[in-house]
Amino acid sequence: MKPEDCAVFHRLLLEQPWVAIATQGEEGPYGAMVAVAWDHDKQSFLVYLSTLSLHTRHLQRRGACCLVIAQPYLSVTDDPQELARVSIECEAAPIGRDHDEFARCRQQYLARFPVAESRFDLGDFLFFRLTPRRGRLICGFGRASTVTPAEIAACWSES
Amino acid sequence: MKPEDCAVFHRLLLEQPWVAIATQGEEGPYGAMVAVAWDHDKQSFLVYLSTLSLHTRHLQRRGACCLVIAQPYLSVTDDPQELARVSIECEAAPIGRDHDEFARCRQQYLARFPVAESRFDLGDFLFFRLTPRRGRLICGFGRASTVTPAEIAACWSES
Repeated sequence: MKPEDCAVFHRLLLEQPWVAIATQGEEGPYGAMVAVAWDHDKQSFLVYLSTLSLHTRHLQRRGACCLVIAQPYLSVTDDPQELARVSIECEAAPIGRDHDEFARCRQQYLARFPVAESRFDLGDFLFFRLTPRRGRLICGFGRASTVTPAEIAACWSES
Repeated sequence: MKPEDCAVFHRLLLEQPWVAIATQGEEGPYGAMVAVAWDHDKQSFLVYLSTLSLHTRHLQRRGACCLVIAQPYLSVTDDPQELARVSIECEAAPIGRDHDEFARCRQQYLARFPVAESRFDLGDFLFFRLTPRRGRLICGFGRASTVTPAEIAACWSES
């Protein structure tokens, strides 16, 4: 990956924790928004979801999913095609309250989203760890490249 | 739908034309970003996509898809769960250059995205009309409701 593309990717990961997720719905693909933190080893993402949500139930049935992290569109004079975005296909695995990694995930997650504290009192939430399989980074019109899980981790770790 | 939720929905449709789309990939659900305009009758969305893009090829194979339109996350002090967003499950149908509706779609699309003009000189782009099947509107934590295609059209037409 080009260093300038890695820098764009790092900014997306740093500044856009509120991202779209594509899941496998009953009648076709479904999409929702999720708040995304990184796990401690920077190899995977963590989402903390309510089992009342449709996308959570999709992930419980089938772990294949895709995150879409995008620079926001803020001005009508922007050409949206020039905005940076990345699609990251992942495999999701649940981490429930009785899982021995739950406490560590909670700590990681609250470091990113302190406002989520009260949702740890609700019984219907659980974590999913999303492990990247492949990414497609677009840094502007015609500037697209495929990224590997190793490149995703490397870009995140670089500052 | 409550009038206050309809107002939130209308603002999303008006202010966020750069949205995520979930498509059916080869190995699972996929997600990308698309620029969305409305068709003239406000009953369906229009996207103008390159056949070089993965999500375009997914839509050519299978029209089932889902748009995710979200209020942007702009401050680390925001609770993302409080931000408005809507998932709209749609069926996509292609409208190529030889289609008798192409010229009208182009006009509609350029009214929303004047910067896209030069992409009409490129041969690999085509329109898809996305017809809503069902929506799920979330106006904040715990404020979720299901919306019908008729409600989507009504909310968009209201100002």
